[in-house]
Amino acid sequence: MSAFSELRRSALNAVLSVVVALLLAPSAHAQNDPLPSWNDTAPKAAILSFVEKVTKQGSPEFVPEPERIAVFDNDGTLWVEQPMYTQLAFALDRVKTLAPQHPEWKDVQPFKAALEGDIKTLAASGEKGLLEIILVTHTGMTTSEFEKVVTDWLSTARDPKFKRPYTELVYQPMVELLSYLRANGFKTIIVSGGGVEFVRPWAEKVYGVPPEQVIGSSIKTQFKMQDDTPTLYRLPEINFIDDKAGKPVGINQEIGRRPIAAFGNSDGDLEMLQWTTMAGAPARLGMLVHHTDTEREYAYDRDTEFGRLDKALDAAPIAGWTVIDMKADWKQIFKD
Amino acid sequence: MSAFSELRRSALNAVLSVVVALLLAPSAHAQNDPLPSWNDTAPKAAILSFVEKVTKQGSPEFVPEPERIAVFDNDGTLWVEQPMYTQLAFALDRVKTLAPQHPEWKDVQPFKAALEGDIKTLAASGEKGLLEIILVTHTGMTTSEFEKVVTDWLSTARDPKFKRPYTELVYQPMVELLSYLRANGFKTIIVSGGGVEFVRPWAEKVYGVPPEQVIGSSIKTQFKMQDDTPTLYRLPEINFIDDKAGKPVGINQEIGRRPIAAFGNSDGDLEMLQWTTMAGAPARLGMLVHHTDTEREYAYDRDTEFGRLDKALDAAPIAGWTVIDMKADWKQIFKD
Repeated sequence: MSAFSELRRSALNAVLSVVVALLLAPSAHAQNDPLPSWNDTAPKAAILSFVEKVTKQGSPEFVPEPERIAVFDNDGTLWVEQPMYTQLAFALDRVKTLAPQHPEWKDVQPFKAALEGDIKTLAASGEKGLLEIILVTHTGMTTSEFEKVVTDWLSTARDPKFKRPYTELVYQPMVELLSYLRANGFKTIIVSGGGVEFVRPWAEKVYGVPPEQVIGSSIKTQFKMQDDTPTLYRLPEINFIDDKAGKPVGINQEIGRRPIAAFGNSDGDLEMLQWTTMAGAPARLGMLVHHTDTEREYAYDRDTEFGRLDKALDAAPIAGWTVIDMKADWKQIFKD
Repeated sequence: MSAFSELRRSALNAVLSVVVALLLAPSAHAQNDPLPSWNDTAPKAAILSFVEKVTKQGSPEFVPEPERIAVFDNDGTLWVEQPMYTQLAFALDRVKTLAPQHPEWKDVQPFKAALEGDIKTLAASGEKGLLEIILVTHTGMTTSEFEKVVTDWLSTARDPKFKRPYTELVYQPMVELLSYLRANGFKTIIVSGGGVEFVRPWAEKVYGVPPEQVIGSSIKTQFKMQDDTPTLYRLPEINFIDDKAGKPVGINQEIGRRPIAAFGNSDGDLEMLQWTTMAGAPARLGMLVHHTDTEREYAYDRDTEFGRLDKALDAAPIAGWTVIDMKADWKQIFKD
């Protein structure tokens, strides 16, 4: 090889190195801290180590991309659930909106309590009372009409404590986690006890989760042709409750694969975490968000009406689930 | 600009053209005939024209990738459904397998008919009789156990006419269509009247459709911890019938978006095609596979027990759905 061609080759190699470095730079940089709102404590380490293990080709714990399913509870895991589930706030506002068409509600429980904002009486009406309110406020219209009602409400409603739209009260560390998992070939699935059609209209914009990756509770719908237009009409009847032992059922029904990672925050997520992590396979990740931050959000666990964390908190150390201490482990709760 | 730099630029352009041509060549070639098992008749033209319209950036009918949902019936649309639905053949074989544990079946209908292969009496037992057979043969085990039973059966069972495994009796033109749509950014979803857990175990391998993109009829399951192992147990109770008006309901429940293309072959697909194509949007594709080929497969429509095509065939010209004439439009039915 001549000195000239040698020189030319070196020059070419140098150029190529720069090009390669430039091409790799943004991704290398992003890999430096894919979870900037997480403190460098145990939960962050557990996430990073798990993702490394299951994505590393040739590792004994490698999981092929199509099987990388991660499931997330919504209320209290991805967004705020106090002082009451957002969907309940929506339902109570709907009662007020619909009240003029129902003058009888002024004297009938649980509607009287809903109209008067009497949460104590409302809570005392129990599951039956709440169900009655949900059915009256969530049905009797087409699916498209309901989507519009939800979207309109979210655009104006404000959280009572933070005075911000509910869709801004999503946990920034969890939003980063969703992105990080997707960047590593995971499908991120929401498995909510809340209504699937209450979450779908905004999940894609806020979480990057498309409608087909949202599982939730649902009411029955009926196909109807209305003047040559096909519609799905929402009937006042529960179809499926996607909570507790219902969560693995919903996951199997709609996904048909067992997840390899599950994130929850309450006893409603216990069975989902069991289903995900206790299958005998090597690498599985179970995590619980523990609300410990009175100042920046709320602190609650065993004694709360919404998002009780009791049995699952006891199960965590035995099952090897990581408990996220919001106060200690999260640098930031919400996006500024 | 000097004559030399002009010349250099032309030379560079020439090189670039060759590089670009080489880079594009394989894809251009594939685009030449993405549907080689289809004859050059109207249905193929309709598919190609539809895909071009919805994928062409800037076209008034452009559809963003996440909204490119195509739904496919399974029995009779993607694979053979005569002389009876494959899942029914499976159920009848299961009755024979389970018979030793049920000596009483020898004298009780519809089991007696099933054991004797007396299809006429079996059919006469109606929906109630068939349901009884489905529940007995499809439940009373975990979801994992059922998956194994299905997989084992498919590996040995042979179709009575073609003497081939059922999973080889999938329509090659439709397999090409599934791939072609996916290559153009579509999600291809199976929406089967058959059991979702009967289709999922093989849909990925045979159709390239992952479990989470299979919707179907289902039976109820129950979450149970068995010696520290979480399982889903199949109960003898129907959960959902994904047929006729149930198909749009199932699509909305699991996908949450309205499809832009739908493929079926029977009256069971009528509402799915209506839901897909009659939404008032510009570009929608509805297609019906019409079984017209006695020689290479079967010919049937209005008068058949399995896959009756009657109302939907009448609706097609009015709704603008394309009818695929298997004999005339398909070069090949199965893979050799």
